[in-house]
Amino acid sequence: MNARFKAQRETRDYQASDAAHHIHAFLDQKALNAEGPRVMVRGEGLYLWDNDGKRYLDGMSGLWCTNLGYGRQDLNAAAARQLEQLPYYNMFFHTTHPAVVELSEQLFELLPDHYSHALYTNSGSEANEVLIRTVRRYWQVVGKPGKRIMIGRWNGYHGSTLGSTALGGMQFMHEMGGMLPDFAHIDEPYWFAHGGELTPAEFGRRCALQLEEKILELGAENVAAFVAEPFQGAGGMIFPPESYWPEIQRICRQYDVLLCADEVIGGFGRTGEWFAHQHFGFQPDTLSIAKGLTSGYIPMGGLVLSKRIAEALVEQGGVFAHGLTYAGHPVAAAVAAANLRALRDEGIVERVKDETGPYLQRCLRELFGDHPLVGDIQGTGLVAALQFAEDKATRKRFDNESDIAWRCRTIGFEEGVIIRSTLGRVIMAPALVAGRTELDELLEKTKLAVDRTAQELGRL
Amino acid sequence: MNARFKAQRETRDYQASDAAHHIHAFLDQKALNAEGPRVMVRGEGLYLWDNDGKRYLDGMSGLWCTNLGYGRQDLNAAAARQLEQLPYYNMFFHTTHPAVVELSEQLFELLPDHYSHALYTNSGSEANEVLIRTVRRYWQVVGKPGKRIMIGRWNGYHGSTLGSTALGGMQFMHEMGGMLPDFAHIDEPYWFAHGGELTPAEFGRRCALQLEEKILELGAENVAAFVAEPFQGAGGMIFPPESYWPEIQRICRQYDVLLCADEVIGGFGRTGEWFAHQHFGFQPDTLSIAKGLTSGYIPMGGLVLSKRIAEALVEQGGVFAHGLTYAGHPVAAAVAAANLRALRDEGIVERVKDETGPYLQRCLRELFGDHPLVGDIQGTGLVAALQFAEDKATRKRFDNESDIAWRCRTIGFEEGVIIRSTLGRVIMAPALVAGRTELDELLEKTKLAVDRTAQELGRL
Ligand SMILES: Cc1ncc(COP(=O)(O)O)c(C=O)c1O
Ligand SMILES: Cc1ncc(COP(=O)(O)O)c(C=O)c1O
Repeated sequence: MNARFKAQRETRDYQASDAAHHIHAFLDQKALNAEGPRVMVRGEGLYLWDNDGKRYLDGMSGLWCTNLGYGRQDLNAAAARQLEQLPYYNMFFHTTHPAVVELSEQLFELLPDHYSHALYTNSGSEANEVLIRTVRRYWQVVGKPGKRIMIGRWNGYHGSTLGSTALGGMQFMHEMGGMLPDFAHIDEPYWFAHGGELTPAEFGRRCALQLEEKILELGAENVAAFVAEPFQGAGGMIFPPESYWPEIQRICRQYDVLLCADEVIGGFGRTGEWFAHQHFGFQPDTLSIAKGLTSGYIPMGGLVLSKRIAEALVEQGGVFAHGLTYAGHPVAAAVAAANLRALRDEGIVERVKDETGPYLQRCLRELFGDHPLVGDIQGTGLVAALQFAEDKATRKRFDNESDIAWRCRTIGFEEGVIIRSTLGRVIMAPALVAGRTELDELLEKTKLAVDRTAQELGRL
Repeated sequence: MNARFKAQRETRDYQASDAAHHIHAFLDQKALNAEGPRVMVRGEGLYLWDNDGKRYLDGMSGLWCTNLGYGRQDLNAAAARQLEQLPYYNMFFHTTHPAVVELSEQLFELLPDHYSHALYTNSGSEANEVLIRTVRRYWQVVGKPGKRIMIGRWNGYHGSTLGSTALGGMQFMHEMGGMLPDFAHIDEPYWFAHGGELTPAEFGRRCALQLEEKILELGAENVAAFVAEPFQGAGGMIFPPESYWPEIQRICRQYDVLLCADEVIGGFGRTGEWFAHQHFGFQPDTLSIAKGLTSGYIPMGGLVLSKRIAEALVEQGGVFAHGLTYAGHPVAAAVAAANLRALRDEGIVERVKDETGPYLQRCLRELFGDHPLVGDIQGTGLVAALQFAEDKATRKRFDNESDIAWRCRTIGFEEGVIIRSTLGRVIMAPALVAGRTELDELLEKTKLAVDRTAQELGRL
């Protein structure tokens, strides 16, 4: 590790100060304070170092966001250049700036012709907040103001603000702050857990038909949109059966319900396609984006609109009653543009599709296909999940599967690999720049972590 | 202008591209496309340049956020250093990083002892979203889960997400996406408009008593918090009479309702105090922060909690069911820490209090105290508003006051000064680094703009 990055202060000093002043996300702060968080100080490529010099292979690209990995000089240079020229200006005052114009140009070069306009935000949560307000506005503008209800999925994840929490299907999050009216949910299409005697194809169709039933129950004249991640991420990495998305699309079209894809995790190359909906072969009306948009270097999100929606809003919408101070922030926009340019010019997405993605998926199936702890393997491109199971044949899950996955993830940290535990699964989503060497290390250390977990359970 | 910043592309080329792909905030996109937005390309100190080389004195510090002005090498260096070391890491995985620890240390050095913990977000809207969910959680934790209703004010502004829109009192925003249950509003304490025959002191008390009436109407056992900007910003720069805040504080204490200050505009020196609630002399339970926290160089917001609230959440709260990918983002945190350091070490807030603030306020009263278009002057420190009026003595406002203020603001742009028009007022809030020379230019050009507006109306 470069001398420049040697510890400035003792780890326990950072920990004590953090405990004194900072409330972390999604955890029990009292327990964290007792344990003491790891203090991350440096990143380079796929690697992270903590304040004690320990190195980690980051198998989660931060939080599924550092698609280009750490230490990208091109992104840093783009930020520096923009900071030097114009670190901030707003877009409320009938003004714009080159950085956001150039970002839009880059973005729409990547996107199918179906889409024409974007709104920018600072996060995925804000992207979905704008989505909810924009979709409802769209229906007002085209003369169907009754269409207000947003349908999401149980265990879907769309963010942590009120609206995005309500859209999501995480019940423990609903309890903090409350559910909202005009939101509804259908089941997650997770065959391994809920497929019963059905084939995956039958189950996928059954799950999709829940949307039709829900629309009929609520009245199509009241339903604005169906919002879903092409594959569910935080909800435990759920890849729906192939039959699912075509049927969902048919239903949305039939009942004039907008089909909104949350591409916050799936976008910008994760599956080997630029956007995850392209992998699954459907055509959403809107795309929520964030994370991979800037590789996480500067916070940014956005909402992409189809021509149909944008045209209605621009031509007939009048004043758009929404605005964020930092929408289209010049530094974020400059970094996003540089990020998209690198992903494209370096052929990174194609490599995920043709080489690294298939390699990771094949090796995972070789390593864990018959593993005594693993019941199922899901994923494509550079995203994958291992579902633990007590009995693979009957798809019987462990009662304490969350503890087991958490234990496996903790062993991973000890072994120097960061994988994530979610709802009884362990998940990996490394930076898209990962080469074979790094994927081999990821696989090897994950195998070690899963094996050690299995040993502790007396299954190996 | 430095050659490095010469126009890369023609203005109309940027405009056409922007129109093709980008939906702006809070305006009629069709009208904007016809007009063509100004393309801002460079900032330095208090000055901005557009793509045609025209220079503007930025009297609004971006959008009340670039408290240190443009072109600060210290902030750029802090961003560059952090980008180099660790451009991103999350704080979900029992991890933290030095940048966020150091930011918290800086922040709590500035804050009264009453406060102990912060949560970080990417914007003011997200700060208020977390506020709503955190306040409700707090009451659950301390055994009063019925306390859910948030009371805000008409024309209050708290952001553009669903929750922050509902908390705010902008009705045209409620119409897009809808109001939410468990939000209520009381009137704005704007004496000039609504004071009638009451003295300002009487009126301030009357307005505060509306809170008591509303709490009694809703039942104190159902009311979680009262949320307000110490002075209303986007709602037209409303400074309440001195009698207002003490009475509000008494009522909140009496009914065990949390008092939550939205310091997104008022925080970090705007009034000459570090936080606007200190100017008004009350003690909130929470502070929503953003904007001046980073001087807008990188998006960031946050929520500051009193010891009482933080202790309940940490000690008894269990898992905190909230989290944003970019909470405590290292680059944002590093810039925020550098920004707070500069504000402190350069004595900028003290200078606003002792020198530049009093100077601006005195000059405004000299220039506009008897102006035929101006009915009232509000403000303190480096924030001020001119209320236009048809008849100052009777406080009669123009029917088309919004058009008049908009016209004045447009003339300002022509004259090379950026002031804002809101609800019949023109507003200024220059960077806190403004010296006398810049304030003189701001005053002179604003005078020109107001005079020209008055001339067009045949009043001068
Ligand atoms: C699919 C999806 N949507 C939205 C979000 C929210 O993004 P953010 O945390 O940036 O608000 C996330 C975050 O993990 C996500 O996975
Ligand atoms: C008082 C106040 N609160 C909150 C916000 C919302 O902040 P943001 O636009 O960063 O979401 C604003 C924005 O102007 C504001 O003035």
